[in-house]
Amino acid sequence: MPNHPENREITGRTRVLGILAHPTEHVKAPPAINRIAAERGKDAVMVPFDVAPEELAKVVEALRQIKSLDGSIVTVPHKQSIVALCDELTPQARAVNAVNILRFEPDGRLIGGQLDGIGFVEGLRSAGVDPAGMRVFLAGAGGAASAVAFALADAGISHITLSNRSRHKIENLRDRLRKFRSDLSVSLGSGDAGGHDLVINGTTLGMKPEDPLPLDVATLHAGMVVAEVIMEPEMTPLLRAAQAASCRIHHGRHMLQHQLQLMADFMGL
Amino acid sequence: MPNHPENREITGRTRVLGILAHPTEHVKAPPAINRIAAERGKDAVMVPFDVAPEELAKVVEALRQIKSLDGSIVTVPHKQSIVALCDELTPQARAVNAVNILRFEPDGRLIGGQLDGIGFVEGLRSAGVDPAGMRVFLAGAGGAASAVAFALADAGISHITLSNRSRHKIENLRDRLRKFRSDLSVSLGSGDAGGHDLVINGTTLGMKPEDPLPLDVATLHAGMVVAEVIMEPEMTPLLRAAQAASCRIHHGRHMLQHQLQLMADFMGL
Repeated sequence: MPNHPENREITGRTRVLGILAHPTEHVKAPPAINRIAAERGKDAVMVPFDVAPEELAKVVEALRQIKSLDGSIVTVPHKQSIVALCDELTPQARAVNAVNILRFEPDGRLIGGQLDGIGFVEGLRSAGVDPAGMRVFLAGAGGAASAVAFALADAGISHITLSNRSRHKIENLRDRLRKFRSDLSVSLGSGDAGGHDLVINGTTLGMKPEDPLPLDVATLHAGMVVAEVIMEPEMTPLLRAAQAASCRIHHGRHMLQHQLQLMADFMGL
Repeated sequence: MPNHPENREITGRTRVLGILAHPTEHVKAPPAINRIAAERGKDAVMVPFDVAPEELAKVVEALRQIKSLDGSIVTVPHKQSIVALCDELTPQARAVNAVNILRFEPDGRLIGGQLDGIGFVEGLRSAGVDPAGMRVFLAGAGGAASAVAFALADAGISHITLSNRSRHKIENLRDRLRKFRSDLSVSLGSGDAGGHDLVINGTTLGMKPEDPLPLDVATLHAGMVVAEVIMEPEMTPLLRAAQAASCRIHHGRHMLQHQLQLMADFMGL
């Protein structure tokens, strides 16, 4: 049987993977994960599980009992509420307080992981950018930004400057980062990205044409790596400005591409 | 997109179908149903749900909450225990007291159907054998035989002779058939199939080479249709004897083939 998703047949031996979302119409992972399964020669298939928030606990409890189910991606709106339903969390999931991947162990235990930030760091590394020792500027303090912050902390950055319109949110993220890695230097900044090696937009600003910029692009300069978590559009106004300022740019899609491989690993593919 | 299963891609819009069994390794339906879905141009996929008997109620309750799930086949060992978990049963499911197909309605209601017998009758009809008005001899009183009996009663047979080594079981089936169709003539017989138009083996006798015959093959004669529910082997000793006696023979596989189409219809494919 060739290692090609189009040639696989689902049988009673096929292992099942889910993606828990609500709604599921716009999730992109199933074809990508099914392609990875085929590339790895694994007889497994991901299907969408559309579950309303109020039913999540009941459904997850039951999914644990399906012996042919090995894992599930977790996405909007379940990433936070799933945390309390897991038996065990990875250090990243515990730090970020969000889970985006589940593994159902044969003994029934449910392991929750968080690969958003690790996927981002892996994407950087495979583009030849090792964040170890870097001074990082991060715009945003929501789910994606927090995940990136904890993964960067784990990857050995020397300093992180947090910037967000909500002061409360970055204070909270700072405190959690210090708890996670006590020797990490964390400061709270404004839109000034000057003096950093790696500048990251972890907000959704740039998805819509009318969005304001997530930081002061006049402070970008050559020698910086400027990275996005936004995937659509591929070239955000921030990345255009960074390119104009002779920065090295890093697209949002890398985060997802690397994360899909990590998710496949996590689910045992 | 060509109507071919090999060319389909599972996305967030794909509708999910299950097969509830324990274990699932040997179930045959997923590739067959997935082929039917593709032939019908439907974006749906069947995957195996391996659920232990003691977890069935909890799992089914949760599956009702998965909005991307449209239906499920139910097979060994769940066909009887699922009955009490349905909100509504088809007349066949109620009569047979077993469910082999589920439809999850958008409003959360769970409809249980029983297509074993109807699949058998459809198989007969499409082979040009209309059971209406026929005198039927049925060996067996288990799940498959009961399902065939109720579907034949529905299809307008004039008489049925029930034959089984357990007298208690055929008395019970007789009483339930009379309740289901009060004008049906039902008698309890031995292995003598003489005087019937349609002779059916509804037992598992014939699967193993050392099995005794399910009825007295000396009583078979030309003009009879002799039918099997056994699929493997295709030619049972009963069918061989029937052929030698110049009877018309009807293979067990027709029952499954027609049932798969009916199951696809029931789940909304």
